[in-house]
Amino acid sequence: MSRKATTDKTPRAKPSASTGRFSYEGLDRVLHEKARLGILASLAANPDGVLFNDLKQLCALTDGNLSRHLSVLHEAGLLETWKGPTGPRPQTMCRLTANGQRRFTEYISVLEQVVADAQRDTQPATPPPLSKRRSPA
Amino acid sequence: MSRKATTDKTPRAKPSASTGRFSYEGLDRVLHEKARLGILASLAANPDGVLFNDLKQLCALTDGNLSRHLSVLHEAGLLETWKGPTGPRPQTMCRLTANGQRRFTEYISVLEQVVADAQRDTQPATPPPLSKRRSPA
Repeated sequence: MSRKATTDKTPRAKPSASTGRFSYEGLDRVLHEKARLGILASLAANPDGVLFNDLKQLCALTDGNLSRHLSVLHEAGLLETWKGPTGPRPQTMCRLTANGQRRFTEYISVLEQVVADAQRDTQPATPPPLSKRRSPA
Repeated sequence: MSRKATTDKTPRAKPSASTGRFSYEGLDRVLHEKARLGILASLAANPDGVLFNDLKQLCALTDGNLSRHLSVLHEAGLLETWKGPTGPRPQTMCRLTANGQRRFTEYISVLEQVVADAQRDTQPATPPPLSKRRSPA
């Protein structure tokens, strides 16, 4: 039996062979921003909705920061908010829209790709000495 | 045999019970920024180093953007650069430092947590009607 040379294990692909391979275009900045990612994860974990004050606590955000990020998500159509009955302590309920759920799922699939890339490419802690191949100027 | 009530399956945890559960403090903004994440993933995949021009192509970045992000990573001690031999086409080689490799691995472990959270909490596409429980003001 003969084995084709192209099936041989190669240490790494030639970088120039894959333009944009690591551009991760799917990491939409609206969702990727750290605080908003936490908000989206909280809401995905609680599809019935989360009260503003609970969300603040889950994401460890201040009132102002949470409000600002909720506005961004709302303007992007990912989030809907509901005002509770008026009274001495009016509350706001936040929930993902169907579009928000879909976009978050798509975003997570890109994150899975990032994790898979990193897991595949993890090398031993000590890299080969670059200085043996190329002297710094 | 009796089973304790606390082992019963509950639909979801009370949000207020887990302060900062979704704050994802480990998502260091130096590494989390989309373009820098692509650069780090490229370098992790090529531990011998990547030439500036190849990195530009892998990450689909302009010269200016790549330079700017490399500076941020260099200042954070995650990256080292090596100038090639002088000549008609001098080149720069970029490589993760040992610290950079460690920090990237730690960052990826937080991403894995985000993905695991999302996978655990994925719900059917149609959420229960909030309007039946709470009327918008």
